[in-house]
Amino acid sequence: MAKDQKPRRPRAETPKGFRDYFGPEVTERKAMLDRIAAVYHLHGFEALETSGVETVEALGKFLPDVDRPNAGVFAWQEEAVPGGGSGDWLALRYDLTAPLARVAAQYRNDLPSPYRRYAMGPVWRNEKPGPGRYRQFYQCDADTVGAASVAADAEIIAMLADALEAAGIARGDYLVRVNNRKVLNGVLEAIGIDEGAADKAPQSMLDAVTGARNKHQRDAILRTIDKFDKVGEAGVRELLTTGRTDASGAEIEGVGLDATQAEPVLRFLTSKGADNATTLQNLRAAVGGSAVGAEGVDELAQIAAMLDAMGMGADRVVIDPSVVRGLGYYTGPVFEAELTFEILDEKGRKRQFGSVAGGGRYDDLVERFTGQKVPATGVSIGVDRLLAALREKGLAGAEAQGPVVVTVMDRDRMADYQAMAAELRAAGIRAEVYLGNPKNFGNQLKYADKRASPIAIIQGADEAARGVVQVKDLILGAKISAQASVEEWKSQPAQVEIPCEALVATVREMLAR
Amino acid sequence: MAKDQKPRRPRAETPKGFRDYFGPEVTERKAMLDRIAAVYHLHGFEALETSGVETVEALGKFLPDVDRPNAGVFAWQEEAVPGGGSGDWLALRYDLTAPLARVAAQYRNDLPSPYRRYAMGPVWRNEKPGPGRYRQFYQCDADTVGAASVAADAEIIAMLADALEAAGIARGDYLVRVNNRKVLNGVLEAIGIDEGAADKAPQSMLDAVTGARNKHQRDAILRTIDKFDKVGEAGVRELLTTGRTDASGAEIEGVGLDATQAEPVLRFLTSKGADNATTLQNLRAAVGGSAVGAEGVDELAQIAAMLDAMGMGADRVVIDPSVVRGLGYYTGPVFEAELTFEILDEKGRKRQFGSVAGGGRYDDLVERFTGQKVPATGVSIGVDRLLAALREKGLAGAEAQGPVVVTVMDRDRMADYQAMAAELRAAGIRAEVYLGNPKNFGNQLKYADKRASPIAIIQGADEAARGVVQVKDLILGAKISAQASVEEWKSQPAQVEIPCEALVATVREMLAR
Repeated sequence: MAKDQKPRRPRAETPKGFRDYFGPEVTERKAMLDRIAAVYHLHGFEALETSGVETVEALGKFLPDVDRPNAGVFAWQEEAVPGGGSGDWLALRYDLTAPLARVAAQYRNDLPSPYRRYAMGPVWRNEKPGPGRYRQFYQCDADTVGAASVAADAEIIAMLADALEAAGIARGDYLVRVNNRKVLNGVLEAIGIDEGAADKAPQSMLDAVTGARNKHQRDAILRTIDKFDKVGEAGVRELLTTGRTDASGAEIEGVGLDATQAEPVLRFLTSKGADNATTLQNLRAAVGGSAVGAEGVDELAQIAAMLDAMGMGADRVVIDPSVVRGLGYYTGPVFEAELTFEILDEKGRKRQFGSVAGGGRYDDLVERFTGQKVPATGVSIGVDRLLAALREKGLAGAEAQGPVVVTVMDRDRMADYQAMAAELRAAGIRAEVYLGNPKNFGNQLKYADKRASPIAIIQGADEAARGVVQVKDLILGAKISAQASVEEWKSQPAQVEIPCEALVATVREMLAR
Repeated sequence: MAKDQKPRRPRAETPKGFRDYFGPEVTERKAMLDRIAAVYHLHGFEALETSGVETVEALGKFLPDVDRPNAGVFAWQEEAVPGGGSGDWLALRYDLTAPLARVAAQYRNDLPSPYRRYAMGPVWRNEKPGPGRYRQFYQCDADTVGAASVAADAEIIAMLADALEAAGIARGDYLVRVNNRKVLNGVLEAIGIDEGAADKAPQSMLDAVTGARNKHQRDAILRTIDKFDKVGEAGVRELLTTGRTDASGAEIEGVGLDATQAEPVLRFLTSKGADNATTLQNLRAAVGGSAVGAEGVDELAQIAAMLDAMGMGADRVVIDPSVVRGLGYYTGPVFEAELTFEILDEKGRKRQFGSVAGGGRYDDLVERFTGQKVPATGVSIGVDRLLAALREKGLAGAEAQGPVVVTVMDRDRMADYQAMAAELRAAGIRAEVYLGNPKNFGNQLKYADKRASPIAIIQGADEAARGVVQVKDLILGAKISAQASVEEWKSQPAQVEIPCEALVATVREMLAR
């Protein structure tokens, strides 16, 4: 007969932009998230777990192009229902806020109000993957839906500081900086760049033109403020007005404000004082006569007082007007947690670790479903960033210790070896029997090495007959074999022969070394 | 101007076949999985977390129809790479075994061998949803890849028993039943229905015809064996031979074996004895002269000895030939864990809770990627079933207690209320401040009720001036208001006034009641 033509074998590959997590990578992240969840829970937040799949309609945001609704998300169309038209478009969630919005609308009559919830889990982004950028990653959010009071913001800010400490970041190694979008709105209002005009439907052609110009200018001002850390006060002044020549000699166009307009923006930016009281005083001056600006400063003052009452000192949380995080998206208080310790970047230069979490107040959460504005505020912790910080600090990623390995000298006595492993496990000691081909004992020790085993248990027929067992300290053994001469090594001080009854006690003692 | 036409609001709905999990539903499942993971870890298994997304090529199994590769899975095609042909088909994983196969092949040079891994997480099925059947659900697996020895099977069987107890199922409320596919193969071989002929490429037309007939008969015999619990020994005998008239009077065709052929099958089915030794002896008789059958019985004997050595008595694990679980898929030992306590079904009749976990040996895991057979064995616990069992036993699903709620009598004193909540939390007591509109105090108590709060803290201006606070026992209060007269209720014995300094101590004492 003719030989069957074999089909090509499938490739064993993780899809592009996705990755696998092994052993300690999984358990360390889990341990960190468990500690954060405990803090969220202590603050009265309830767990919520939605499925990974939502209707594209509920996710919303990603529908700029009706023909291809999956820009940015992984989406697919359900099969058509027989006789019922085309199937729904479904998609993987791209964050945990969109599902919260759907849940808050769907169960609005059943959920307590305000509704405090936390959520932790994977989200998916259909983006071009890059180094360290994956298309599935974890988010870890806490939000309060239905609370208009800034007490909700203050609570979440304090909770974030507690969560970072619970995760393992020491006090002094992080700082939560708090700002308020309304303060900047007030500053812009004071210099005649009214936000409202751009958001509301224009009443006349002149309105429309003014609105578009204002929106353009506002965006340009936001982008400029964001450069404060880089170009400093003088640089921002130039960029806000006539423009600036950068280090490379390139001309950068200015926003076109006159000097009188630029001044309040700069006063706002540089208003951080030695303490919150001074900062608030400076901000009050910067917003001038703007009502929304004054409201923003009042809110910050309330938040500062509440944080104080909750025992959050300036070593943990400060009012800082330079926080511009998502100012365009948020409607009130915003905040960002930064890790303040230094690390070396890829070029060996020292730099601060930087942002690991942030959030703020937003009000359009449920509105698109129900038409009713529902105030909401929340925080999102960057799981991978925070885990990287813990590794940087030596608080995670240490070579995890493997199990005690019971080696197999005699294939017919597997039951005896399994009894030993069971005895160790009954004493709470992680243990396993070598399950590969036992013929080559060297392979068993190589396996134990790959498993990062601290101890190997060895018992041949001779030892069994005498009621003893060999216990080999692999950590000490590795040290000796790296440093000692062959003679020293041969004396095997890392291996002891003990009576079988002493197995648990001996292993326990060795593990405690 | 013409009114803008408002777009239709999106529906706030979970996609069909998916569901949301709230509060205790999330934390109870998590607690159960944590306890099981601890058992897996103690046995030397390592966590593995693959992403939810795999290439359809790697998932494999679901490609019967080239035009529509998503039968059974949620699949979509990646965008075409510019100039690089069509994009890959991606899909959500439908179980945790297919990703393990991919990982075992992809990292075969790096992973320890044997590789013990556990995995817990959601999987997705593109199936018609039904009552209690969702399109996303959890799986919880442990597998050993690369171990040919039945010691690996024995270990996993013992680990399953330990995991069930760790989850909360008491000894005596479950039983793990173990069988071996080779034993049945031996019985079939002994009566002339050779498995090999159906699986190998036929060498002649006669072979092909015999093979097809054997496969048909084998499948029919497997289906018949599965009815043993329902129709008993006599019923199976009829079904294996000439056929049977069922209770409704319908004629059911027989498999067509003659009496001599049916006898060994029946002997196999009824070979469970008073103890494993008797069962094994009966099985040895049932397989007659079949080599593969004898091998199967030998393996079961080894497993029985190992389980014994690991302290697994007949109250936890037994050899039971009636386990037919996926016999067609598995290649060696198979096992199933059943919960033996009775529950009432939807019609109020008593029945055993039934199967919550199972597994066995399979050898085609890595072969489709690499061409090399890699022996593997594993267990999968039905997460939802086991959780339902714990609820049935009152070990989960109890109304979870909410946080202590600090009510707001005076809107301007939010900072004070937050300080109280912070003080309680610092003492490890779950607490929150009421964040809704505080105007109507009744709403605050309704909220506390919805949150299942055990205690409400109340402090008006008067109490604040006197340095006292009211602590209201809501659980006792609910009891009293349900039973007591208005006069009794008004005396409010469930509410005490205490000095502010005594807050933590009083709340702690009340919670301990």
